[in-house]
Amino acid sequence: MSKKLTSRAEDYSKWYNELVVKADLAENSAVRGCMVIKPYGYAIWEKMQAQLDKMFKETGHQNAYFPLFVPKSLFEAEEKNAEGFAKECAIVTHYRLQNDPDRPGKLRVDPEAKLEEELIVRPTSEAIIWNTFRGWVQSYRDLPLLINQWANVVRWEMRTRLFLRTAEFLWQEGHTAHETKAEALTEAALMNNVYATFAEEFMAIPVVQGLKTESERFAGADETYCIEALMQDGKALQAGTSHFLGQNFAKAFDVKFANKEGKQDYVWATSWGVSTRLMGALIMTHSDDLGLVLPPSLAPNQVVIVPIYKTDEDLNAITEVANTIMSDLRGKHVTVKFDNRTTHRPGAKFAQHELQGVPLRVAIGARDLANGTVEIARRDTLTKEVVPLSDLTTIIEGLLKEIQDGLFKKALDFRDSHITEVDSFEEFKNILENKTGFISAHWDGTAETEDKIKEITKATIRCIPLEMNKEAGVCVYSGKPSEGRVLFAKAY
Amino acid sequence: MSKKLTSRAEDYSKWYNELVVKADLAENSAVRGCMVIKPYGYAIWEKMQAQLDKMFKETGHQNAYFPLFVPKSLFEAEEKNAEGFAKECAIVTHYRLQNDPDRPGKLRVDPEAKLEEELIVRPTSEAIIWNTFRGWVQSYRDLPLLINQWANVVRWEMRTRLFLRTAEFLWQEGHTAHETKAEALTEAALMNNVYATFAEEFMAIPVVQGLKTESERFAGADETYCIEALMQDGKALQAGTSHFLGQNFAKAFDVKFANKEGKQDYVWATSWGVSTRLMGALIMTHSDDLGLVLPPSLAPNQVVIVPIYKTDEDLNAITEVANTIMSDLRGKHVTVKFDNRTTHRPGAKFAQHELQGVPLRVAIGARDLANGTVEIARRDTLTKEVVPLSDLTTIIEGLLKEIQDGLFKKALDFRDSHITEVDSFEEFKNILENKTGFISAHWDGTAETEDKIKEITKATIRCIPLEMNKEAGVCVYSGKPSEGRVLFAKAY
Repeated sequence: MSKKLTSRAEDYSKWYNELVVKADLAENSAVRGCMVIKPYGYAIWEKMQAQLDKMFKETGHQNAYFPLFVPKSLFEAEEKNAEGFAKECAIVTHYRLQNDPDRPGKLRVDPEAKLEEELIVRPTSEAIIWNTFRGWVQSYRDLPLLINQWANVVRWEMRTRLFLRTAEFLWQEGHTAHETKAEALTEAALMNNVYATFAEEFMAIPVVQGLKTESERFAGADETYCIEALMQDGKALQAGTSHFLGQNFAKAFDVKFANKEGKQDYVWATSWGVSTRLMGALIMTHSDDLGLVLPPSLAPNQVVIVPIYKTDEDLNAITEVANTIMSDLRGKHVTVKFDNRTTHRPGAKFAQHELQGVPLRVAIGARDLANGTVEIARRDTLTKEVVPLSDLTTIIEGLLKEIQDGLFKKALDFRDSHITEVDSFEEFKNILENKTGFISAHWDGTAETEDKIKEITKATIRCIPLEMNKEAGVCVYSGKPSEGRVLFAKAY
Repeated sequence: MSKKLTSRAEDYSKWYNELVVKADLAENSAVRGCMVIKPYGYAIWEKMQAQLDKMFKETGHQNAYFPLFVPKSLFEAEEKNAEGFAKECAIVTHYRLQNDPDRPGKLRVDPEAKLEEELIVRPTSEAIIWNTFRGWVQSYRDLPLLINQWANVVRWEMRTRLFLRTAEFLWQEGHTAHETKAEALTEAALMNNVYATFAEEFMAIPVVQGLKTESERFAGADETYCIEALMQDGKALQAGTSHFLGQNFAKAFDVKFANKEGKQDYVWATSWGVSTRLMGALIMTHSDDLGLVLPPSLAPNQVVIVPIYKTDEDLNAITEVANTIMSDLRGKHVTVKFDNRTTHRPGAKFAQHELQGVPLRVAIGARDLANGTVEIARRDTLTKEVVPLSDLTTIIEGLLKEIQDGLFKKALDFRDSHITEVDSFEEFKNILENKTGFISAHWDGTAETEDKIKEITKATIRCIPLEMNKEAGVCVYSGKPSEGRVLFAKAY
């Protein structure tokens, strides 16, 4: 298989698919719409998990685990939520296979092993969790309940793409219960902010924080906060959501508490999640025609050392130096790998590490040893320089910081140069045809207008930015009054 | 709900169930046989995961993720494995719900949304993984393939118990592919040894390493290594297994490689796993009538500090001291919590921490402040002493080590005093009626004898110990020749 990727200019979608597979991030499986996350891709996901988990714990949340299955009677209890997920869910109906009398050695579903009640494979866990919370909450002393779960979920999507939209995906889902509406709203906003911080500081992905319009909200939510990112092809990607659920689930599952005055009241809820979809955002924000580009914070190996040698003697001498470099770097919490595989030539190793987005590559040859130097190559700028071995650790620490900051800056510049203020619908349509990105435009606040615009242009309202200027204007489509600009875009 | 547990002597099984629920480890859910793992229980599981994950990575394994579902045609490909799991598996047959015309507002399975091929919710992942490995292995250069997955699996067990046997459980499953039979056998033994080290050094649970008999092997394995532990009630518990799968899955899924001579050959396989069942082993090895007893290595909080105060002034002074203690302890990587809840009295806090197995409790009152002392209580021995505040960190470090070692020693003494060498079947039956534990006896090596003994006594061969003396003898049941003693027991 050729390692060379289709270029982004030629076919962005093909470039993406090829990159995911060739960089060993993920691949399609024998199960329709379900992916296999390969070790290298999973190592990046583990880095994301570790950082998010830390941030959740620092904000007072605890992990727990709830069942994979939701009995149909619980699934349908909160009607809007049920309606939102009913059309794309995997349903377990039987619990046993038997020998197939028509095909010796093969199996069939045992028709007598039918479940009394069907089980839905969780597309999201509000139903099973709120049914459990009923037993956990009696009084205000039990609140707030701040729970998170790392889990797999299944949504039977018809059109799937690796990481971006898969039938099964991995995610975390936070579920919290509060005494008051204000506290729940604060929690929903706080967790959206945690996601924004994570996206910007660790993934180097700039995001707009905002609220979803009613038609784009999570099924069962009263308000949905989101972080929206812009991909290199000018399409937006929803990278995380945090929902204020009001008392909807508390009422559907009868979760009441005795408040400080001794009166029974329904609790207030939030839920929030990010998923392996973030891998797609990561790829489409930073990568180039040579492959993946990783911010150092998420790189499984921040540095790889490649020996260039002809004799065993040279290799031994290089290995000795490499061991010292590795020990120094690890002392500074830099992850580093010595790629001393004898099955691959240096050129092939360079190409692989480029494809897999290793931030820094250090090459050491016999001449370097004599000169007390090494060659260091940056993945982000594709530049190389020869540096003194004695300064290497300091140089690497500086470069990793520079790369992390540089990737964010570059993505931010791209994003900011792809937000266009638009005041007429002609211009709106032109922009979507010619160049893409976010369109900042006035909207009259109605679902009708939103639908019409979507129908005509395929663009949706990505969010009502939290930092929206309350600037009066007229709707770009209907000409009716508007309170401020919202962000439109075509989206993943 | 009373916090007091049924005593072990009164009803061991009831004691176990009550402890799991009252110590906030887990509870039953609305889904038959599936549990909710509560935050405190999950925090212990996270500690196990972190340590095991580290040990897997240190032995060269990488994590990946494979689909939850196994298409039926793949599930049935390895016949013995399929047969072993066919009778207890959850089967997805449909992918959509619709409005139920007979029950307004409710849903039913859409009969038109039937899958062409049924999907089995993985009871174990050999089938889907080996189907994937086919694409990953071409030459000996691609081997060994050393993969691990942290995942949920489902086995539709009819009789379930929290942690010990649940329809859904969490586990890790290692899956490896090798060039040679010898290498795969070494891997299977190595990983069983990793489990034994983990059980003994981190969980403080002594285990016997051994091989399963043919009838107790994993379905599809040529050899199953295991670690067997002994619970306080004298029943054995299989705590982990590691399988040598021969070329069975390679043949079923056509996974071949070009060997060093350029010839095509099937690869050799292993798989190995431990699960949330370990939580059950942990509980039943160390705990007592007051609740959970945790080895410090797995305790979410190794130390809890409880302030004893009457005035806000006292609390402030105690808080200041507690903050210093916490900072010192955290500097030594000791996990510690200051239980300054105002909703609970000290007695209630003591009882809760006892129930939840916190290894060390430090109580600080106003008089302690004046004397420069604190009271420290051990959960394992239930002893208390007053110690100088100035030595506290050193004392705590010493005690944590002492507790960890002491718990293992106690469990080892119990286990060793519950292995009885038996040479007649009368004695064999007597022991199982009177006292329990492992019986070390000669066996003629046949499945017939094994079945007969099980039928008569309910005891099974837990393992053929790796350290078995090759001592010739005669079978305790049949009188036929035997090559050495094996371990029998009733088991969970």
